Amino acid sequence: MARDPDCIFCKIAAGEIPCIKLFEDEETLAFMDINPVQPGHTLIIPKEHFSDLYTVADDAISATARTARRVATAVRATLLPGGLNLLQCNGKAAAQSVFHFHMHVIPRATGDGLAMNWEITPGDTAAIGELAERIKAELV
Amino acid sequence: MARDPDCIFCKIAAGEIPCIKLFEDEETLAFMDINPVQPGHTLIIPKEHFSDLYTVADDAISATARTARRVATAVRATLLPGGLNLLQCNGKAAAQSVFHFHMHVIPRATGDGLAMNWEITPGDTAAIGELAERIKAELV
Repeated sequence: MARDPDCIFCKIAAGEIPCIKLFEDEETLAFMDINPVQPGHTLIIPKEHFSDLYTVADDAISATARTARRVATAVRATLLPGGLNLLQCNGKAAAQSVFHFHMHVIPRATGDGLAMNWEITPGDTAAIGELAERIKAELV
Repeated sequence: MARDPDCIFCKIAAGEIPCIKLFEDEETLAFMDINPVQPGHTLIIPKEHFSDLYTVADDAISATARTARRVATAVRATLLPGGLNLLQCNGKAAAQSVFHFHMHVIPRATGDGLAMNWEITPGDTAAIGELAERIKAELV
């Protein structure tokens, strides 16, 4: 499995850097974004390293999308948001900050006015951890 | 294959309503958004009807994501944008307007200030058609 020794998401996938994990299978990992743009913001990655949408293998994007569907359904059941986006970013103009392919699950509130690119602001790690436990309880 | 008789994307998938088609395989269809938020804005759908991310079948989301990767790569090769987003919207707060699961491919320009929800504005159909021919020439 290809890996980039300098990639933070490769290190998280290998368990070398901790994360607030929601779900893991052979090919993918889902964890809480510690800089959430909204409560319940989660990330889904393939464990194998691909820098972006243009280079990700078909098997890896398929597995990532399936895990995203599963996690999004649990996020919805937990928070009952007014909406939810699946978002994937490539390149500087789209504010891609980690060059390991990933999908964002972002719960939406009516009139929240979210921009496609947002400022990265650290969240409350304890509150994120408690929310992760509630989301995990909804995973089926 | 499940179908909703009132769904515009089901009608497009069945060829009953025309579209500016980019790509088609057994499970998916990619076509130009005629209300583009940016030039090169495209949509990818499974041919089978699922209303949203919560209900889409694993096979259908996998196939849709693979086609999105393929189309996004051709859009990038055609327009060389500063970035590109893959976006999928669910529910009113996320401005989902057609309740047939779909993914948006949205080229990005630096500083374009795009919002996650945008106003729907019709584009120039002739210009969209010409751009579609250029994108199709880059599909591999």
